[in-house]
Amino acid sequence: MATHLADKHKPTLDTAVRALHERTFFTHFPENPSPEVYGENADKEGRESYTKHLNNKFEELLQENPESWTGQEESPYEQKALGISYPFFSPETLVSRAEEAFHQWRKVSPANRAALLMETLERMRTRFFEIAYATMHTTGQAYMMSFQASGPHAADRALEAIAAGYEEQTRFPESTDWEKPMGKYNLKLNKTWKAVPKGVALVIGCSTFPTWNSVPGMYASLVTGNPVIIKPHPKAILPIAIVVAEVQKVLQENGLNPNICQLAVDSEERLIAKELAENPKVKLIDYTGGTEFGNYIESLQGKTVFTEKAGVNSIILDSVDDLDKVAQNLAFSVSLYSGQMCTAPQNFFIPENGIKAGGETLPYEDVVKKLADAITGLVNNPKAGPHILGAIQNPATSARVKEADTIGGKPVLTTCDFSNPMFANARTCSPVIYEVDAANKEAYSRELFGPIMLIIKTKDTDQSIELASSMAREHGAISCGAYTTDPEVKEKIMDEMALAGTPVSFNLTGGIFVNQNASFSDFHVSGGNPAGNASFTNPEFVIKRFTWVGFREPVVG
Amino acid sequence: MATHLADKHKPTLDTAVRALHERTFFTHFPENPSPEVYGENADKEGRESYTKHLNNKFEELLQENPESWTGQEESPYEQKALGISYPFFSPETLVSRAEEAFHQWRKVSPANRAALLMETLERMRTRFFEIAYATMHTTGQAYMMSFQASGPHAADRALEAIAAGYEEQTRFPESTDWEKPMGKYNLKLNKTWKAVPKGVALVIGCSTFPTWNSVPGMYASLVTGNPVIIKPHPKAILPIAIVVAEVQKVLQENGLNPNICQLAVDSEERLIAKELAENPKVKLIDYTGGTEFGNYIESLQGKTVFTEKAGVNSIILDSVDDLDKVAQNLAFSVSLYSGQMCTAPQNFFIPENGIKAGGETLPYEDVVKKLADAITGLVNNPKAGPHILGAIQNPATSARVKEADTIGGKPVLTTCDFSNPMFANARTCSPVIYEVDAANKEAYSRELFGPIMLIIKTKDTDQSIELASSMAREHGAISCGAYTTDPEVKEKIMDEMALAGTPVSFNLTGGIFVNQNASFSDFHVSGGNPAGNASFTNPEFVIKRFTWVGFREPVVG
Repeated sequence: MATHLADKHKPTLDTAVRALHERTFFTHFPENPSPEVYGENADKEGRESYTKHLNNKFEELLQENPESWTGQEESPYEQKALGISYPFFSPETLVSRAEEAFHQWRKVSPANRAALLMETLERMRTRFFEIAYATMHTTGQAYMMSFQASGPHAADRALEAIAAGYEEQTRFPESTDWEKPMGKYNLKLNKTWKAVPKGVALVIGCSTFPTWNSVPGMYASLVTGNPVIIKPHPKAILPIAIVVAEVQKVLQENGLNPNICQLAVDSEERLIAKELAENPKVKLIDYTGGTEFGNYIESLQGKTVFTEKAGVNSIILDSVDDLDKVAQNLAFSVSLYSGQMCTAPQNFFIPENGIKAGGETLPYEDVVKKLADAITGLVNNPKAGPHILGAIQNPATSARVKEADTIGGKPVLTTCDFSNPMFANARTCSPVIYEVDAANKEAYSRELFGPIMLIIKTKDTDQSIELASSMAREHGAISCGAYTTDPEVKEKIMDEMALAGTPVSFNLTGGIFVNQNASFSDFHVSGGNPAGNASFTNPEFVIKRFTWVGFREPVVG
Repeated sequence: MATHLADKHKPTLDTAVRALHERTFFTHFPENPSPEVYGENADKEGRESYTKHLNNKFEELLQENPESWTGQEESPYEQKALGISYPFFSPETLVSRAEEAFHQWRKVSPANRAALLMETLERMRTRFFEIAYATMHTTGQAYMMSFQASGPHAADRALEAIAAGYEEQTRFPESTDWEKPMGKYNLKLNKTWKAVPKGVALVIGCSTFPTWNSVPGMYASLVTGNPVIIKPHPKAILPIAIVVAEVQKVLQENGLNPNICQLAVDSEERLIAKELAENPKVKLIDYTGGTEFGNYIESLQGKTVFTEKAGVNSIILDSVDDLDKVAQNLAFSVSLYSGQMCTAPQNFFIPENGIKAGGETLPYEDVVKKLADAITGLVNNPKAGPHILGAIQNPATSARVKEADTIGGKPVLTTCDFSNPMFANARTCSPVIYEVDAANKEAYSRELFGPIMLIIKTKDTDQSIELASSMAREHGAISCGAYTTDPEVKEKIMDEMALAGTPVSFNLTGGIFVNQNASFSDFHVSGGNPAGNASFTNPEFVIKRFTWVGFREPVVG
């Protein structure tokens, strides 16, 4: 590998490692899709590039001799097939090619691996807009989220994984002189250590965040020397296919085997995730998706597994300064991408005697009404609604929302019909609200993926905290929002939710939302409850991907 | 807690953290049991203290209201019961007391936990000789090993775990101001993070190294805020009971609940390890012992597990400078504590065409004879034999050695009778040697715990490497010794054994042996093969014991 890549990327790498430890604001890829940042024609060209893929074969990959071509993506905005087909390879072929590539990749130094991978992110940057349109038309995300989540935010999370992996592999010396005084003489040993990668890695993607949830595991495995097989969701392939293609080109340009990073596309008729996961050569698995398959992945013996599964996220309402601002903030959080986020809030705990707001006590009913009104207002605002809600990725999600009355709650807001003025055929769904009795735990103790908001009337805030915390401990949670002006209540929420391994955002209003998660600052799914152990990006996320092995020999003479 | 403890131990803590990263020679507890170091009467007083325990109740623990008293230890040197009885508590009592203590311990800061734990090691130091005699008469180790392994070496490994745990918990800021430019304004958040301990921890000890193998997990769990239940092997309790008693005293002196660290003694009639391990409140398990029970521990869902199980350790003989020195070194390694070490070598791979020694080729038969002669010489040297071999902990081990001819090998050295002049009744056993055909993999693909040495005649060194590496990958290995003067062969051994997750000691002669493992320098069982993932002490050993949880709130004003 040309050393110019290592030199080129070293300053950013060092800055990224420092950012990991400072945890102040840091980003390498600008999130603003404006022409001033990305160029006058970037958006237009990105859209054209996306359009060219439609009804075509995706031929950019450097994986040879496909066994067939397959592809089943459909646009949630247009409700029609994209017509893109991808090369298909059997699990056996994929694993044996990965094994072969492993012995080349593991011999590249951690510093050079980091540089090569950072170069691939720069290539990805040139295709952010194309990836954005690909994300819109596979996931149903609105334009802005498609751009940010699949482009700069994903690339920042990937950079974070590269930085963490590089740091951990270089945290102990490569060699040292060990000298032990033995009384009459000194015993001298030369010692050396290697960070030995575990082997073939598999990344199983989800249908809603095809790059954001896949690149951290992918880059974490790669930077630590493991070859990776990326198995996207059959309905959301194109965004990550573009990333994999760029990685393969950089590998080939630098004289390396492109199979160090392979794309493994499958179809509903021939799903290959289980076969790949169970292959004894596959040592590492990153998985994002439903709980049932996630639990199966976690039960596989002899694998190191990172998961992000479902959780039930809570909002605890105790006391606020200004309920209008709070309601607007929460309405946005519930509506954003129609609740199809692992960090979206679902269970809203409100005391039956109401909450304190700016000195007064607001009755429970008024709080519920405020929240419902805020959602209705947001959804019906033509300048906001379509850009926030986007479309529904999976018809099962719309069906779940439409059947939400079967949960056994009292309806507060039941119509989820919403039409997108830009896409007449879009599959859309705005939030519904149901009130559920605190005693009816069954109703609110599982994730209802999509824009379903449950209001749980509690005896008091203590019960709200107890329920939010026990839900997280027993069923998992990835986020929690809490509103309180009382320092003691705040302390109690922190303590109880900490024990449930759930991060808490307090008193959010304005332009920051419980669903959002900042690279280089917010730890994501750090493993303290059943929602998963993906751990973006604390040291655990990278060090479990390699083994320290030491060698020693007496010093001669 | 009085801050004087934090001040007192801070310099050593900082030095220990630095030592972890330098990996040069470092020790805090002197390994030499000489009167100049430990005091004129230290040995005598230690022996007397040990003797006072015999045929008595062990009443030092601060655990209240025992349900009964139990104890089944016997001296391998005297082959008679020690007569010591310990308080028995049901698993339910132990876990509920640990849960209660948890909520106190987790609120002590990482720095104060580290200081308190370092103070307990200083108390342990005052009882090193007593622990040494307790270790001799439970494990059968010789005096020197009993002193070093159960005293200073164990305390150094504990200090290593404290240092690593302290470092990892303080590696990210407790709080930070996060400020994101949003164009028209800056978004400001206060962020804080907590390292949240996972919960009740269990340490399951083994019969041969009652403190060395238990204190790393015990101190790693404690320093990260988890209460610990120590379940020693029913035949090797006293050494760790003394340590636990000292920990409890320090806790109580500092106003803390002694149940933060509990001893859980059981007996053959009422074994409680499974019941403890399966308790849903038990979140962390450290286990040392046989493979079968270890695999069961690893299969438990919802637990974080650290294991040290069995492995088959190899010696690869390719070329040497001086075979006599090599044979002496290996004879010592095989004889040390009669092979009852997880790092003891078992499979010796020798090419059928012999090895190069100082320019000449030595025939295979001559190499075998040299090794056998070196063992015979060592064992029969009255100044060495008894001090190296010690006694056999478990009658099953002697039986295994006596029945070694059933393995299907060709006998080279079959008498294992050895009598210890100091202990007429000692259960002893010196090494036996069998030659096994390389094709007869079944014979040498499992651990034959005890002084059994198998010589495997191979086609050439390439085959030796391939077999040693595949044994480690498939059946586990904790150590490997290799002898070669050829840099290319050395490189190949490093590469193949690295992939098998096995550290390699090259060309050891003189006063350093493949079985030995230095704290603060040699990583031990770092997780790359089926022998376990105890990982003394790389970051993985401590960071899996807590979860990072973050909190954030907008800056007001």
